[in-house]
Amino acid sequence: MTKKGLLLVVSGPSGVGKGTICKEYLSKYDDCALSVSATTRAPREGEVDGVSYFFLSHDEFRKKIDAGGFLEHAVFCDNYYGTPKDAVMEKLDEGKNVILEIEVQGALQVRSHYPEAVFVFVIPPSMEELENRLRGRGTETDDVIAKRLQRAKAEFKYIDKYNYTLTNDTVENAVCVLHSIIEAEKCVMARNYEYLKEEFIK
Amino acid sequence: MTKKGLLLVVSGPSGVGKGTICKEYLSKYDDCALSVSATTRAPREGEVDGVSYFFLSHDEFRKKIDAGGFLEHAVFCDNYYGTPKDAVMEKLDEGKNVILEIEVQGALQVRSHYPEAVFVFVIPPSMEELENRLRGRGTETDDVIAKRLQRAKAEFKYIDKYNYTLTNDTVENAVCVLHSIIEAEKCVMARNYEYLKEEFIK
Repeated sequence: MTKKGLLLVVSGPSGVGKGTICKEYLSKYDDCALSVSATTRAPREGEVDGVSYFFLSHDEFRKKIDAGGFLEHAVFCDNYYGTPKDAVMEKLDEGKNVILEIEVQGALQVRSHYPEAVFVFVIPPSMEELENRLRGRGTETDDVIAKRLQRAKAEFKYIDKYNYTLTNDTVENAVCVLHSIIEAEKCVMARNYEYLKEEFIK
Repeated sequence: MTKKGLLLVVSGPSGVGKGTICKEYLSKYDDCALSVSATTRAPREGEVDGVSYFFLSHDEFRKKIDAGGFLEHAVFCDNYYGTPKDAVMEKLDEGKNVILEIEVQGALQVRSHYPEAVFVFVIPPSMEELENRLRGRGTETDDVIAKRLQRAKAEFKYIDKYNYTLTNDTVENAVCVLHSIIEAEKCVMARNYEYLKEEFIK
């Protein structure tokens, strides 16, 4: 019996560092694969279909939406982006863990399709620190930063839909704690009960 | 605001190695204290009241039972043994984590008094391996071993009352996974929500 892999949804407000954490995690540990998104935007030089993205036409994408083929999807700059359900499920069925790094609204969509996933909300050490980080980029106007903070505050209202909170104090710590979450989730009784029943209770 | 500590209940059938895991954990990590039991048996040489055990008279013990002063208790060889609630709660309130290594029946009692605890059921890699370990001690008759295995099988029926299963393949691995469980539990949303609401949602 192959035990199903874990779908790990790593989410949180813009600027909190969720992308960096996932990238570092995948370079440090080999127990997870990154989910490959689908998009309708044209491939850029060097991008490989099925590796960088699954490249679909608008028509293909919309048909896939209608067929319930996405765990989540969104429109950004006139193009669709989404997480194809079949590609993720295939890996999970093979016993592989999959990490999905995603915005809060997308995570909520995933939750409605696949509640067995593990939902992790990345938080900054404080609201002040998030503002510092957004300012630290040095590329945004005060107005843009204020809007991003406002959006972050709105997103924080959904934290109770998540299983775990992960503080991004340092990337190293956050990666280490994320590993603990994965290790612990593998031991969660509900995920092991059928196997244990077979081995120890029959 | 001091965050409450975790009460970690490590349980499982006799011979599975739960005592060794807890001892090794406490020698490797300093983030948990071991719960001190109370007993009515006489102190042995070198045992210190409040450190080895809380030594109580039969009368004191029974009064404490009636007052709901134990998280669990049992009788063994005409003496009472139990886990005093106040001593554990005091540590948890100070933000310290407490490990309680305990038989399955005791763990179920703790669960009814303090369901917020984290319940970990230690399992052997297989039923065959548990039998090997019991035989390996070389001190028990076939009859005693058969009875212990029978009891283990009865205890396995309660695994669904536990949050996690912990395989004792090697003590080193088990200690490492136990640490992951503690780290992950510290991040569980329900345990952090009040604090997060205050910092990020107000």
